[in-house]
Amino acid sequence: MNLESANTLGLLAGTLTTVAFVPQVVKIWKSKHARDISSGMFAIFSLGVLLWLFYGIQIEAWPVIFANALTLGLSLTILVFKIKYR
Amino acid sequence: MNLESANTLGLLAGTLTTVAFVPQVVKIWKSKHARDISSGMFAIFSLGVLLWLFYGIQIEAWPVIFANALTLGLSLTILVFKIKYR
Repeated sequence: MNLESANTLGLLAGTLTTVAFVPQVVKIWKSKHARDISSGMFAIFSLGVLLWLFYGIQIEAWPVIFANALTLGLSLTILVFKIKYR
Repeated sequence: MNLESANTLGLLAGTLTTVAFVPQVVKIWKSKHARDISSGMFAIFSLGVLLWLFYGIQIEAWPVIFANALTLGLSLTILVFKIKYR
């Protein structure tokens, strides 16, 4: 598999792990309820995603950069919802 | 920054995004309650993480491989909990 194929796979992976957060954001948005969500999870996760973003920049892997930039936004949204609907 | 430094950053990032799932697993385990968790999120996320694992193997980025293998296990655990405690 060449680099182009690997990038396609990475883009698909990144699309899924990013899009995955959308149903969770929508669920909390609709129910205005986030009791079962762990704030610890989304705080640590957001910090980790920020570091993945830096890592992607370092190794110049654009699927890693692109996916993590979007995931960071969604993960922080869930964290804000958790605080808002406590 | 050289490859070794990038790998250190990736390892730290992977540790955080993997460890992040532990408080969520513990929270559901203790409360036996996962109503606010989106099964759609964890189903799509698990599939995406599986593809990140394949991507990591393709580009031979061991922090990507290592982190995603563990994250997959934790993400699937949350999905099983969600089904179990519905």
